[in-house]
Amino acid sequence: MNYVFSDRIAGLQASAIREILKFTAFPDVISFAAGNPAQEAFPIDDVSRISNELLSKNPILALQYNITEGYTPLRDLLKVMMAEKNCFSDNDELIITAGAQQGMELACKVLCNEGDTLICEAPSFIGSLNAFKSYNVNLVGVELEDDGINLEKLEVALKANTNTKVLYLIPNFQNPTGNTMSLEKRKAVYNLSKKYNFIIIEDNPYGELRFAGEDVPSIKSLDADGRVIYVGSFSKILAPGLRVGYVSAPKEIIQKMVVCKQVSDVHTNIWAQAICEGFLQTCDLDAHLHRLRAVYERKCKIMLGEMDKYFSKKIKYTKPQGGLFIWATLPEGSNMLEFCKRAVEEYKVAVVPGTAFMVSENDKTNSFRLNFSTPTDEKIVKGCEILGRMTREMLD
Amino acid sequence: MNYVFSDRIAGLQASAIREILKFTAFPDVISFAAGNPAQEAFPIDDVSRISNELLSKNPILALQYNITEGYTPLRDLLKVMMAEKNCFSDNDELIITAGAQQGMELACKVLCNEGDTLICEAPSFIGSLNAFKSYNVNLVGVELEDDGINLEKLEVALKANTNTKVLYLIPNFQNPTGNTMSLEKRKAVYNLSKKYNFIIIEDNPYGELRFAGEDVPSIKSLDADGRVIYVGSFSKILAPGLRVGYVSAPKEIIQKMVVCKQVSDVHTNIWAQAICEGFLQTCDLDAHLHRLRAVYERKCKIMLGEMDKYFSKKIKYTKPQGGLFIWATLPEGSNMLEFCKRAVEEYKVAVVPGTAFMVSENDKTNSFRLNFSTPTDEKIVKGCEILGRMTREMLD
Repeated sequence: MNYVFSDRIAGLQASAIREILKFTAFPDVISFAAGNPAQEAFPIDDVSRISNELLSKNPILALQYNITEGYTPLRDLLKVMMAEKNCFSDNDELIITAGAQQGMELACKVLCNEGDTLICEAPSFIGSLNAFKSYNVNLVGVELEDDGINLEKLEVALKANTNTKVLYLIPNFQNPTGNTMSLEKRKAVYNLSKKYNFIIIEDNPYGELRFAGEDVPSIKSLDADGRVIYVGSFSKILAPGLRVGYVSAPKEIIQKMVVCKQVSDVHTNIWAQAICEGFLQTCDLDAHLHRLRAVYERKCKIMLGEMDKYFSKKIKYTKPQGGLFIWATLPEGSNMLEFCKRAVEEYKVAVVPGTAFMVSENDKTNSFRLNFSTPTDEKIVKGCEILGRMTREMLD
Repeated sequence: MNYVFSDRIAGLQASAIREILKFTAFPDVISFAAGNPAQEAFPIDDVSRISNELLSKNPILALQYNITEGYTPLRDLLKVMMAEKNCFSDNDELIITAGAQQGMELACKVLCNEGDTLICEAPSFIGSLNAFKSYNVNLVGVELEDDGINLEKLEVALKANTNTKVLYLIPNFQNPTGNTMSLEKRKAVYNLSKKYNFIIIEDNPYGELRFAGEDVPSIKSLDADGRVIYVGSFSKILAPGLRVGYVSAPKEIIQKMVVCKQVSDVHTNIWAQAICEGFLQTCDLDAHLHRLRAVYERKCKIMLGEMDKYFSKKIKYTKPQGGLFIWATLPEGSNMLEFCKRAVEEYKVAVVPGTAFMVSENDKTNSFRLNFSTPTDEKIVKGCEILGRMTREMLD
């Protein structure tokens, strides 16, 4: 039979970048291409203890159907935590999702018709961009600067696309750049959302992983008008295999997301939700985050130090204050894709070409993403030395 | 702010039926309205043992990201099991989903554009129908008879809707009717799928729960042409809280579903997948299913016996050979919705009005659904006595 797929999915092709990522499966490849949290940061003993308790005391809870909104004790804890950060008001509700990824997919599904405009930072997180594309929205990328999205260009895009429904932002330690949006820009985009009447999706999976600088208030905390959908996750602070995230947003929006989640997966795995609840309830989250931040700070410092040591001075790169990623940019005129291909094919070091994070793979970028959370310290040193030699041979 | 939602989700309203279902939360209500498996059928000790082993021997597996396709050892086991039932060929692939529900949602998302026609049995499973509606398809219901969909009416619908992409069927112990499709009709719909060039989604969550009669070959087992998407689930044979289902379908379709699942939830909770794999690997599935079938057979017999004893003879009802549901039909001219409302509000017995399972709640039906797997034996007896008295007072 000759299969004809929906228009929305026809555009989501496996890409040239996947060819590069394939190499990361080989054991002799040093991969800076992942986005996995460091597994030494997983609280294995606590998870085991909480799981054993659950399965011995309340196994039916873990095994029977539950409500779509999420496990009530977990939702109640998160509402309190969100309220303490001014991210949950009386007008809000909170839903548990299968990771932050599902939060983005549901938000787009309930808000955007096909053809509606959704604006994002360029570059931005590929998983979210593909979720949006899978609903056939008009996805428009606006240049990302060191302190956040370019406001002039954002307003140009808003004027050019009067059907803009959503602006998607990752304000803290953005994926892929590691950049953090300034408070001024957060205020400015919020004001634009009022002026041009759109919703902001604030994706904050890395916010708790700040290891330098000062916290910046979330956009959600500025929201007096019910315009911000805040998406959080346990993937980076506890464990991504659990697939537990959450969304704090105005009640009307959450109601629609619940209906949509029900037809998608009925509810999130309840064992995983109970693990998260048990962790928040019985462990010292602050002490845990303190340990996590120390791990990421050390690994980031090692990578930046080695890049300083080995990379050609013609390469620019971000100095993140948290998160998992560094964004390196080759000088104008370089063939970035060729560089990334050679790095993995000839020198066995994998990074992700920046084109992977653009709205279209044809959009121009000279940058690539490096991850410092997954590789061992030794591999960070060795990989940076190899990449550095490549950059010097190419540029110096 | 005044929220404007997408067209696709605007149609998925909370319904009048929900008002009835709300009553089932009250402890004094006898609920025949659920669709939950009997919790005495959960293999709690096995799940605990498998979980403890996993978390002590391979905790990183349970906690780290995994691939979208699903946990490879589980997929390999399922491929063998499916192949033994002629439901997996060399042209097929298999993906793990977050319950069968996600299988339906992904299949519709990858195959149907907005406005494409998707034909289903009328009545059919509300969760699937809403998943299809959430992609704005033209959902067309075709009358379901005791031995499966009405073939003449199906062909009329196919001729009237030349853009039919998918036919959705639950051939075994259908939800809500409990009916099983005959082999002749399975062959006939497969032949129609070739003649009119559409895909069949064969939803089979209850197939292993046969407690009477003979197995009927699946439509997938008749498929020489790559036209059938087979959806299975661990919800009814192991535990629904795990949210683990699977889809066996032609490779090209699974590839698209993988892309779509990646943007939806990255992957299914890996602990739950490993529990399923451990269960298949270390437990006697046949003996477990034998026990399950005995539980459901007994409960079904009790309910049918009490209905025979107490119900007005003017009420017709199905005699399922498996599954969880009985479908009762009031005589022409009765007010079914009023009957269901009075049953729960005045007499504290909840059933689901048949309109809940129609393509539109305005479609006419005199039937209602009774579930025998969730209530205790005592509540089955008491609830049937009450409903029976109501029917006799109303009709005799």
